[in-house]
Amino acid sequence: MSEQTTSQSSQGSYVEPAFERDTRYLSARITADGREGWPVEAGRYRLVVSRACPWANRSIIVRRLLGLEDALSMGVAGPTHDADSWTFDLDPGGVDPVLGIPRLKDAFEAAVPGYERGITVPAIVDISTGGVVTNDFAQITLDLSTEWTHFHRSGAPELYPQHLRAEIDEVAELVYREVNNGVYRAGFAGTQDAYEQAYEQLFARLDWLEQRLSEQRFLVGDTITEADVRLFTTLVRFDAVYHGHFKCNRQKLTEMPVLWAYARDLFQTPGFGDTIDFDHIKRHYYEVHLDINPTGVVPAGPDLANWATPHFREELGGAPFGEGTPPGPPPVDEQVPVAHNPALAER
Amino acid sequence: MSEQTTSQSSQGSYVEPAFERDTRYLSARITADGREGWPVEAGRYRLVVSRACPWANRSIIVRRLLGLEDALSMGVAGPTHDADSWTFDLDPGGVDPVLGIPRLKDAFEAAVPGYERGITVPAIVDISTGGVVTNDFAQITLDLSTEWTHFHRSGAPELYPQHLRAEIDEVAELVYREVNNGVYRAGFAGTQDAYEQAYEQLFARLDWLEQRLSEQRFLVGDTITEADVRLFTTLVRFDAVYHGHFKCNRQKLTEMPVLWAYARDLFQTPGFGDTIDFDHIKRHYYEVHLDINPTGVVPAGPDLANWATPHFREELGGAPFGEGTPPGPPPVDEQVPVAHNPALAER
Repeated sequence: MSEQTTSQSSQGSYVEPAFERDTRYLSARITADGREGWPVEAGRYRLVVSRACPWANRSIIVRRLLGLEDALSMGVAGPTHDADSWTFDLDPGGVDPVLGIPRLKDAFEAAVPGYERGITVPAIVDISTGGVVTNDFAQITLDLSTEWTHFHRSGAPELYPQHLRAEIDEVAELVYREVNNGVYRAGFAGTQDAYEQAYEQLFARLDWLEQRLSEQRFLVGDTITEADVRLFTTLVRFDAVYHGHFKCNRQKLTEMPVLWAYARDLFQTPGFGDTIDFDHIKRHYYEVHLDINPTGVVPAGPDLANWATPHFREELGGAPFGEGTPPGPPPVDEQVPVAHNPALAER
Repeated sequence: MSEQTTSQSSQGSYVEPAFERDTRYLSARITADGREGWPVEAGRYRLVVSRACPWANRSIIVRRLLGLEDALSMGVAGPTHDADSWTFDLDPGGVDPVLGIPRLKDAFEAAVPGYERGITVPAIVDISTGGVVTNDFAQITLDLSTEWTHFHRSGAPELYPQHLRAEIDEVAELVYREVNNGVYRAGFAGTQDAYEQAYEQLFARLDWLEQRLSEQRFLVGDTITEADVRLFTTLVRFDAVYHGHFKCNRQKLTEMPVLWAYARDLFQTPGFGDTIDFDHIKRHYYEVHLDINPTGVVPAGPDLANWATPHFREELGGAPFGEGTPPGPPPVDEQVPVAHNPALAER
């Protein structure tokens, strides 16, 4: 998801007195039974993401963990925007090789002519019609887990198991409001009061998470779940972007020992850290949000190789994949360059 | 000193492709022999500062260390600017009680009608004529040390001793270019290249300082000198402002163990930490530099009570005041509120 991109140019404004996320998505669901007209089918759809975006990052991770690469191809938009939001400027000729379009907006227009809401990632596109089926980021990952089961790899984890759904939903709601979206509410606040309220809620929730995770390896249950995926995508961006750019600066993540160890544990789990492109992340936030960083200069720090350091979370028990197995390495054409993620030098 | 305030309003621009500091100061010297027409005299002059400003902070510290409070009174401008730069908005009626003026600009105009250069602190004003004698921040502290000796308190340190001047000058020059002014060159860089060059030089110099200070308690010699004063005023602002606002984010000061201990050692030395108003510091940078922080929102973090934690630098030998003694507490009307500097709660 890009934030409030509706009718925003790359010089547009994200700041509001108190930031409110536009959550009006295209929300058709792709299901095993095809009840909404969009049946799960290998090769029929394309997942469009940006590696910069935390909301898209969820879907990249879940697709990797579940081994859906062959069933659901992935197009990667560049980290910055033109006046029409996300573009395929990383691809040869600036055109997505499967969809044949230069910008994601074209796929929204193909679905809804005159589309006026946010051009956001992740978006799943029906390849034959070229139209977006859904950009409802929260539902997309749940459906990958629960509707695409036929195509899950052998050994794939259950990220949204029936018996834990109530607890996952409850934790995820708190994390969404105060952490995932909380950092945006701090960073895009147009008033001191709105900022301080977001900051207090964010760090109070991080303190709560620090406490919760001091005695258990994962957020819910003793294997990785959707709840971990959702928290991870914010934590991995914290020191690189949110601490400075969004003024979430009570502490760095590296100064919250439990969360820092927890985040490294996930980062070092196949399917998490290997999806992270710190170069895209930093360039996106600092170059696109010119209303809070008018020079567009991208900070050179911090050092990010420390994501590869030992975390010792195994001592808490649990196993990321339970009875299952980790995914293999990403397909060669989906690997993040080590220059964009120095901690991957270990892989 | 305020940065490049010449003809800048509070909405003015500090950013340049590669930031160059305007160093054209009023530079008459107040000397013991009065050879430039400005003899050292108790009660004749007023030192105008802002506690926000690192260049003015030098003179506040040196005045404290030398016990010049009774001989040279001090006016304190508020942390933010109006369209004409520094104002006395903290004083009753918004007027400096000794100079009788609402803004520092009036004292520059009194000295040089039509004055067009920077309205900067520190400035020393001749009270009877109301005109600025000097705003040459680098010379001001040296003259307090070497020309105002008649009024130094008993037990005052020698901050610029003859036998160490060459070494102090050499270190201070490197520190000025790459650290004191280096953080501004990073923060006000209008291009990625200019920023990265400043960032590299800054952290290379901090690495050099980290090394140098790992084996000696103070920068030059084994007591505090002018060199320590000059480095301290940048270090004390590092995590509160420069790390985020100026993108000096390879590490926080708290992540450079030697420099962090060295800075706390000074902070806890009477005359250093008791001059620091973190509220003024943060408000100044974040509210005045709207061209790099357009919302004017001031970050709530980081926690600054950690400046009171033990530093163990005594183990390196040396003594801050050599054969001398520390100054007593600041005069009651010059004390910084604990709410603006939580580490002072210990005093």
